[in-house]
Amino acid sequence: MTDTACAELFAFQRETEALGQVMGRLGWDQETVMPEGAGEQRAEEMAALAGVLHRRKTDPRIGEWLAAASPSDMVEARQVELIRHGFEKTSRVPEALTAALAGTTSRAHRAWAKARAADDFAGFAPMLDEVLRLTRERAEALAGNGPLYDALLDDYEPGATSVELESMFGALRPRLVALRERVLGAERQPPALSGDFSEAGQLALSAELARAFGYDTHHGRIDKAVHPFSSGSGLDVRITTRTVPHEPFNCFYSTVHETGHACYEQGIDRAYLLTPIGQGVSMGVHESQSRIYENQLGRGRPFTGWLYGRMREVFGDFGVTDADAFYAAVNRVSSGYIRTEADEVHYNLHVLLRFDLERDLIDGRLAVADLQEAWNARFKKDFGVAVDRPSNGVLQDVHWSAGLFGYFPTYTLGNVYAGCLNAALRRDVPDLDAALAEGDTSPATDWLRERIHRHGGLYRPREVIARAVGGEPDEGPLLDYLEAKFSGLYGL
Amino acid sequence: MTDTACAELFAFQRETEALGQVMGRLGWDQETVMPEGAGEQRAEEMAALAGVLHRRKTDPRIGEWLAAASPSDMVEARQVELIRHGFEKTSRVPEALTAALAGTTSRAHRAWAKARAADDFAGFAPMLDEVLRLTRERAEALAGNGPLYDALLDDYEPGATSVELESMFGALRPRLVALRERVLGAERQPPALSGDFSEAGQLALSAELARAFGYDTHHGRIDKAVHPFSSGSGLDVRITTRTVPHEPFNCFYSTVHETGHACYEQGIDRAYLLTPIGQGVSMGVHESQSRIYENQLGRGRPFTGWLYGRMREVFGDFGVTDADAFYAAVNRVSSGYIRTEADEVHYNLHVLLRFDLERDLIDGRLAVADLQEAWNARFKKDFGVAVDRPSNGVLQDVHWSAGLFGYFPTYTLGNVYAGCLNAALRRDVPDLDAALAEGDTSPATDWLRERIHRHGGLYRPREVIARAVGGEPDEGPLLDYLEAKFSGLYGL
Repeated sequence: MTDTACAELFAFQRETEALGQVMGRLGWDQETVMPEGAGEQRAEEMAALAGVLHRRKTDPRIGEWLAAASPSDMVEARQVELIRHGFEKTSRVPEALTAALAGTTSRAHRAWAKARAADDFAGFAPMLDEVLRLTRERAEALAGNGPLYDALLDDYEPGATSVELESMFGALRPRLVALRERVLGAERQPPALSGDFSEAGQLALSAELARAFGYDTHHGRIDKAVHPFSSGSGLDVRITTRTVPHEPFNCFYSTVHETGHACYEQGIDRAYLLTPIGQGVSMGVHESQSRIYENQLGRGRPFTGWLYGRMREVFGDFGVTDADAFYAAVNRVSSGYIRTEADEVHYNLHVLLRFDLERDLIDGRLAVADLQEAWNARFKKDFGVAVDRPSNGVLQDVHWSAGLFGYFPTYTLGNVYAGCLNAALRRDVPDLDAALAEGDTSPATDWLRERIHRHGGLYRPREVIARAVGGEPDEGPLLDYLEAKFSGLYGL
Repeated sequence: MTDTACAELFAFQRETEALGQVMGRLGWDQETVMPEGAGEQRAEEMAALAGVLHRRKTDPRIGEWLAAASPSDMVEARQVELIRHGFEKTSRVPEALTAALAGTTSRAHRAWAKARAADDFAGFAPMLDEVLRLTRERAEALAGNGPLYDALLDDYEPGATSVELESMFGALRPRLVALRERVLGAERQPPALSGDFSEAGQLALSAELARAFGYDTHHGRIDKAVHPFSSGSGLDVRITTRTVPHEPFNCFYSTVHETGHACYEQGIDRAYLLTPIGQGVSMGVHESQSRIYENQLGRGRPFTGWLYGRMREVFGDFGVTDADAFYAAVNRVSSGYIRTEADEVHYNLHVLLRFDLERDLIDGRLAVADLQEAWNARFKKDFGVAVDRPSNGVLQDVHWSAGLFGYFPTYTLGNVYAGCLNAALRRDVPDLDAALAEGDTSPATDWLRERIHRHGGLYRPREVIARAVGGEPDEGPLLDYLEAKFSGLYGL
């Protein structure tokens, strides 16, 4: 039986979770339907709600309940663990520092947008320096005797360490660099799409893709947004997409990506609704779901065969003669400056660059003043190309301006986890490809729901992956998958 | 200079106002875009936010600040007055009663929807009886030595009294009953519309109407909803509309009505944003704005002449041969059971019926068990028709199930105020009709913005109307307007 302290703690936490969902709705509203002139007032509304949430998260009663709580089973124990972890972290950071970070990152975000538009890193550097200073101060408050960077990593991937990531990423880098060189040097190159891809057609087919991957529109909806995202947990999980006139894959694969995030949230055991385990457990595990949907399933030969047929039906002839050529077009590899536009071969190299640079910044081995130069040098080394301007280099991502140090590696960790899950899935479901070739993803989504989604935050991030794949995750399956796939595609 | 107590009080209140706006956004979301399956979770989110708002409104610090506050000017004084009024009301009602009312009305609302669908008043009566009992208990806590009903009226129309309304409404009733009898007995009858009114055409023209009446979509947006409403204050004021296949006026005039509400909110001095005077001052004054837009301006001969031209351009021939016939069609008078579908002649008779019955309920002169009979008898008397079923009679409105006793009279008060404002407007702006005939409403909306909108809650409800029209408002101008308009239309 739940004891009194637990019961009071959980009731209080449930309201906090509900208010957190409200904050998410405001964010969704802002990015999809909010009137253009409402920004200033919305900022004040969100600040007021953030204040309410902050006061709840630091409410001294939580400390008293935690001291008295004795959970009656593993579900309660995990909830208490998560609440305790959050409470201890919030308590360790002085209020004034939290406020200073909020104010500075809000200003830095605007400064970054201006600097990126003007291709002016020097103008942005002092602001970034201030964000970095405050972020390090926060890391010092949190880290105890551990590494500063790991304290930040904990915000996005609890339990992960830089040592573990360095080893994983260290193994990835040389094989990815080698693979990209072989692919770019190959004679065989995929065909280009030509044709008219109407917005209405793109949106209709992207909604069909979301449903095909198991997205439940009874508990969600699809809208347009400049930068696609998914939002919300439980019974209201929304996704967004975008359309680009001659690039239908942009729309389709960002939809499938967000569908992966959304299906994770929608698949969580309803008993966990509005509890600390009622949402995805970490950024890395979340990204593993969006990535396996998008890449290993959505960009594989069987499923693209089905998509090719549907695209022909919707758009008519678009200059690609058969399903094999279409598969090659979907998986075109090309060197580029921008992480968010990168293909499977290049994507993780973008992340590794940021991971190394941000650790150098946090550990004091690199000054903000030298960041642009360091970025450009590393890019030349791994991508073989010189960065032409800051908006294509060090200024391209929003993360650092927002103080999100420690976030980037979760993208690649998600890819690594997706690689492991894909290998295990194929072992467990040998006839998966036949279903995918018919546009039926249910054997895969059922497998993921059973092993990952339904657990929500019940297990720790690495643990839920390990349980799903039957062993400790590592980068091997991802590398094997990429090398096999692109060797085949490019006739290497 | 603002003193410390005022400054702290206003800062606290500003956050409360911002959180109140967030609640409004959730309501908007629920009625327009929320996924169907999200209702249960949304209820919990809104309950959590309502709890936060309630705790803020009863925060004992407010009492301390109020005791120490010395406002420095009339704007501050009015803000303090409004905060004090709200705080005293909230403090007078026991927490347990507030909670019981919230729970009971929530259940009663569901019971009402079921009873209306089943045309079963007897099944709903016990629930309504419980709502009435708790509502009277609340009125007793609030009323002091004054009338119970006035204590409830104060929620919607601060300062109004049943004595004043009884006198006003008493003068309306016989002349409205006489007018409807003459109109319905007239030989001349307006033409019916025939034609194809596409949803896209209706929505496009309704957006044009909103803009024509001064609605600012930079700080708002228009969506579809089952029951049109307006929502939000300040920089984010949204309206909704609906379309009915063969009834374009339904769409157009509900849009103009909501535009009236929205322009009031949008026209408030920006300096009052997120303060207690940053929104419309009462339901009656609010309704006066929606009604003057919809009726005196929107359904007048000059403006309908312009609308006739636009409708011909958008929909082609729809069986109405000229602008005079169109004016008659827009203003068709017909007996009907439903308040929300009533024309200008019948509308207030619907309200008067409810006003009399709900006072009888609150004052204990009428039992819920006898309500249906009393409704039907009164309806027969004023409308000359027998009610055929409860969903067309006593079960048609949501208000009583939600505990909104005292709300109905503000609809007619709004019409009375609109009558006074219209008379003053025409006196001040003699060439108004020429502009309206061109679809230009700006002389009217400018006049209203200057005299009503911009003040927000600065003056008390009756006072802002009296200042605008240059004297105490009464029902005379509304009656004169209605009698002149419909005598002309029906050749009486």
